[in-house]
Amino acid sequence: MAAWRERSWWGWGWADSALDDDACRRLAETSLRPWLPIDGSLLPVPDDPVLPAPRLIPPSILREAFAADPVTRAAHTYGKAFRDVARALHGRLDNPPDLVCHPRTGHDVVAALDWAEAAGAAVVPYGGGTSVVGGVEYRGDTPWISLDLSRLNRVGEIDPVDRAVRVQAGVFGPALEQALAPHGLTLRHYPQSFEFSTVGGWLATRSAGHYATGPTRVDDFVEALRVITPQGPVESLRVPGSGAGPSTDRLFLGSEGTLGVIVEAWLRVTDRPARKASTSVAFPGYDQAVAAVRTILQAGLRPSNCRLLDPVEAMLNAGATDGRARLLLGFEGATTGLLADALTICADHGGVPSAPSAGGPSVAAAEVDSWRSSFLRAPYTRDALIRLGLVVETVETACPWSRFEALHAAVTAAAQAAAPARVAVVTCRLTHAYPDGPAPYFTVITPARRGAEVTIWDEIKAAVSEAITANGGTITHHHAVGRDHLPWLARQRDPLVTEVLRAAKRTLDPRGILNPGALLDP
Amino acid sequence: MAAWRERSWWGWGWADSALDDDACRRLAETSLRPWLPIDGSLLPVPDDPVLPAPRLIPPSILREAFAADPVTRAAHTYGKAFRDVARALHGRLDNPPDLVCHPRTGHDVVAALDWAEAAGAAVVPYGGGTSVVGGVEYRGDTPWISLDLSRLNRVGEIDPVDRAVRVQAGVFGPALEQALAPHGLTLRHYPQSFEFSTVGGWLATRSAGHYATGPTRVDDFVEALRVITPQGPVESLRVPGSGAGPSTDRLFLGSEGTLGVIVEAWLRVTDRPARKASTSVAFPGYDQAVAAVRTILQAGLRPSNCRLLDPVEAMLNAGATDGRARLLLGFEGATTGLLADALTICADHGGVPSAPSAGGPSVAAAEVDSWRSSFLRAPYTRDALIRLGLVVETVETACPWSRFEALHAAVTAAAQAAAPARVAVVTCRLTHAYPDGPAPYFTVITPARRGAEVTIWDEIKAAVSEAITANGGTITHHHAVGRDHLPWLARQRDPLVTEVLRAAKRTLDPRGILNPGALLDP
Repeated sequence: MAAWRERSWWGWGWADSALDDDACRRLAETSLRPWLPIDGSLLPVPDDPVLPAPRLIPPSILREAFAADPVTRAAHTYGKAFRDVARALHGRLDNPPDLVCHPRTGHDVVAALDWAEAAGAAVVPYGGGTSVVGGVEYRGDTPWISLDLSRLNRVGEIDPVDRAVRVQAGVFGPALEQALAPHGLTLRHYPQSFEFSTVGGWLATRSAGHYATGPTRVDDFVEALRVITPQGPVESLRVPGSGAGPSTDRLFLGSEGTLGVIVEAWLRVTDRPARKASTSVAFPGYDQAVAAVRTILQAGLRPSNCRLLDPVEAMLNAGATDGRARLLLGFEGATTGLLADALTICADHGGVPSAPSAGGPSVAAAEVDSWRSSFLRAPYTRDALIRLGLVVETVETACPWSRFEALHAAVTAAAQAAAPARVAVVTCRLTHAYPDGPAPYFTVITPARRGAEVTIWDEIKAAVSEAITANGGTITHHHAVGRDHLPWLARQRDPLVTEVLRAAKRTLDPRGILNPGALLDP
Repeated sequence: MAAWRERSWWGWGWADSALDDDACRRLAETSLRPWLPIDGSLLPVPDDPVLPAPRLIPPSILREAFAADPVTRAAHTYGKAFRDVARALHGRLDNPPDLVCHPRTGHDVVAALDWAEAAGAAVVPYGGGTSVVGGVEYRGDTPWISLDLSRLNRVGEIDPVDRAVRVQAGVFGPALEQALAPHGLTLRHYPQSFEFSTVGGWLATRSAGHYATGPTRVDDFVEALRVITPQGPVESLRVPGSGAGPSTDRLFLGSEGTLGVIVEAWLRVTDRPARKASTSVAFPGYDQAVAAVRTILQAGLRPSNCRLLDPVEAMLNAGATDGRARLLLGFEGATTGLLADALTICADHGGVPSAPSAGGPSVAAAEVDSWRSSFLRAPYTRDALIRLGLVVETVETACPWSRFEALHAAVTAAAQAAAPARVAVVTCRLTHAYPDGPAPYFTVITPARRGAEVTIWDEIKAAVSEAITANGGTITHHHAVGRDHLPWLARQRDPLVTEVLRAAKRTLDPRGILNPGALLDP
C-alpha cells in the first residue's frame, strides 16, 4: 500500500518522481522557449501545509481509521486536475476535509457512514484521488470527511475456471495485475492513472483503459458489485449475462460515490496476450487519417492500440518531426492478418507505415515506445509546466464520425479564442474509436499570468465545453462528471432522468451525505 | 404491416403456417408415439372468441387508433408462451384488454397515456406480442388497454458514415433488415422471434439474438433512445460512448414498459458479412463439449454460432442420430484461421468435425441447415404439440462455468420430479456463451392431462426456477421478467434496488398506469 508521505500531496504520483527545479528549467530551455513566451521562473514546490483545525472529532470506535494531520488532509483536498495542482502550488487549500477516514473492512464503511449521518458530515469517497473533474473535492459548507478506500486492498478468489477475480475497491492497478500475473491472467484495463487509481475509482467513474477499441470501458468487465449505501448494502448477482430487468450494476457504474460506496467487485479477467504486433503509420493529412481509423473500425477490425496523433501531438509525444499525423496501431492475439488488413486500409487513405531502420529498432517501434513513455510521464511533465507558468490541461469527448470535423474545429477555435492574447497550442488525438464515432482528446497549452491560472483555465474550459455541447459531443467520454462537468451534463441529461437519479439518491442516501455536489446539483 | 387477421390470435406467427390437423397427426405418429404416451387426440383450433363488452370507451380524438373487436382483443390478451397458447386453445381468455390502441405517432402515444391516466386504465405496451413471460398480459382488476406500437413503423435516416439507423419502436425485424439491405448494412440481431417481434420490444426486454457470442444482446446496439413517459418524453444523447454518469439508456433497457414507452431508437448497424464458414462437431460426451466451448471463448475466439446441443437436442433438431452431442460452430468475416483454431480446441476435447459426404452437401452442412430450419419452425411445431396434449416449454438462464454442471443436473432433476408420473424429456443446449459462463436453454416435454396443462407447467416451472436460483443462475438470460419470473427476480434483485426502481417508477409514472405487475409487484 502506498504510504501518503511517499505520494505527492500537491501534484501527480510519487513525490520523488516529480521533475526537480533543474529538470524544470531544462524543460523550459529545450522544449518550451522556442514555442511559448515564458520567463523561465518557477513556482516553488510548496512547504507542508498549515490548515485550520478539523471541525469534527472522530468516533472512538473508529479512531484508528481516521487521520487529521495536515499533509493527509491536504492530499485529500483535491484531485489531480490542472486546477487542483495550480491551486495547491499557490497554497490555496480553501476547503480541506476535516478528517480522512481509512476503513479496513466493509463494517468500517458502514460505521463511518452511520457516524457521518449522525454528525451531519458530508462523505466524499476517495480511491486513488486522481480525479480531474472535481470528483473528490467538496465545495459545500458543512464539515466533511474524505473516505479513502485504499486499505480495502485485498484481492480475493481468483477463479481460473470462470476467469474472474473478486477484488476490493481500494486495490490499485499494479497490485491487481501482480496478483493475477502468476495465474497468467490480466484485467487488461490500463487507464493513464493506472498506477495511482483504484478498482473502486474505475467503477465509480466508468473509466476507460488505454486500449483503443473493444472492451476498454471498465463496465465491460463487471460481473457483480457490492455497494454500501447509507440504507444498507446492495449486492448484484454474479452471472455472465442477464436480461432480468434494468441492470443493477449499471445503476452504480458511473454513480461517482453519490449513491453508495462500491466496496467490492467480481471482474472478468483474461489470458495475458501471447502475441503483439504494432507499428506507426504516417498520414499526409489529419482528415485522411481520421477516415482510415473510421474504415478500420467499420471493417470490423479491433486494434488494441489505434491512437491517432495530430502533427503537433506526433512531434511532442512520439518524436515525429515531419509534420505528419501518426496513427499508432497495434494488435494482440491473432495479429498478423489483422495488422496487414489495417495497413491496407491505411494505404487506401495515403498512410505510409514507418519503415524499419537498418541495424536498430525500427522507426515505428521507436515512435510507439516514445509515445508510451511520454504517456506515462505526461502527468509529471504537466506538473513541471504548471510550475513554469503554463496552463496545461486536457479535454475529452466522443461524438459521431459525421460531427467530428466540425467539433474538432469548434473546440480548437474556442480554446484559442478564450486563451490570453488568443495564443494557445491546441492538439488533438483520438484515444478511442468506435464503429460509430471517435473519442477525441484535446490538450490545451497557453501561458498564464501568475495567480490567474485557474481563472484562465476555467474560462477556456467553459468555452470548450460549449463547443463540445453545441457539436454533439458528450461532456465526458471517460474523465467522469464530478463537479466541473455538472453544468453541461445538466443540459445533456434529460431533466426527467435527473429526477430519477435524485429519486434513487433519496432512496439510498436519504440525508444526502454522499459526495454532495458531484453528478447532481445538491 | 401485418394485419391481425393474418396472424394467429391463439398461436404462433402466421395463421396459415400453423400445422393443420393432418400434419399434427403425422407428427404424432412419426415423431412422438415411439417416445411419449399420447393418445393422438387433438385439441381443436378455437373458433373466433366471444368476449365481454369493453369497460372503456375510446376518446373521440383518438378514435381511429382504437380497436375493440373480439379477435384483436383476443390476440392482445396473452403473449406466446406455452401457457398462453394452451389457455387460448381451451378458450380461457379471462382478462382480455378492453381496448387495443394503435398509435401512429409519438403524439398519439402521449394522448393515449394522458387519456388512460384520466380514465384510470392500465396501459400494457405491446410490440409484436411474442412475450413468453406474461409481459403483455394484464392480471389486475382495473380496465386496461393494450398499446400496440406496430404502426410506429417508420425506418428513418440510415447514416452510412456513422453506421447508424433511426428507427421507430414498432418496426418488425424483417422490415428493418429490408430497409438496411440496399445500403449493404444489417443490425445483425436475430432473436428467434425476429419475424414477429419489434425493435421496441427487443429494447424493452433486452433481447438476445441468435449469435452466440460477441454483440448479441440488443443493448450493445443502442446509441440513443426516445421514450414517452406519463410525465413527458425522455431523450438520450446520441454518442458512440460516454462516461457521463449512469447510462440513461440502461435505465430503460429492460424496463419492460413499466417506466415509459420506448418510441424510437438510434441503433448501430454494420456491414453485411461477406464471408461465413460453419461446421458441426460431434463430441463423445456433453461435459467434454462444454469444456471445448469454454476453452474457445476463453481463447478469445468469438464464433457467431456456437450452439451446443445435447444428444437428444442433436437428434430432434439437427437430425444427428449417433447419440453424440453436437456443437454447431460458425464464424463470419475473417473466418479461415479462426475456425481452424476452434476446431483444434474441439479436437483437444475429443470433438470430431462431421466429415463431408461424397457427392452431396456435407453432413455438417446438413446438420447446420437442419438445425436452422428446426429453429425457425420450432414455435409452430410447439403449437402442434400443445394441440396433441403435451406440455412443451423452454427455460433459460446463464451462470458461471463452475456452476453449470450442478445447475444442469438440478434443473433436469427438478423438471422430471415435478412432471406427471415423473416422466419428462428434458434437453439442454447452450444458446450463448461468454468467457465467464454459458447461457443454457432447456426444453421440457411431458404429457399432460387435458385441461390440467397450465397447472402442470406452472408446477414444473416453479421447481425449475428454484433449481436455477439455488444454483447461481439468473432467472432469465434473455426471455425477460414479465410477470412469470417476478417471484424469483424479487429474490435475486437486491431489495434496495427494487426500491430504487419503485422510486424511478413513481417519478416517471406517478399513477402507476404502465404495465402494472411486470418487473415490480404492484
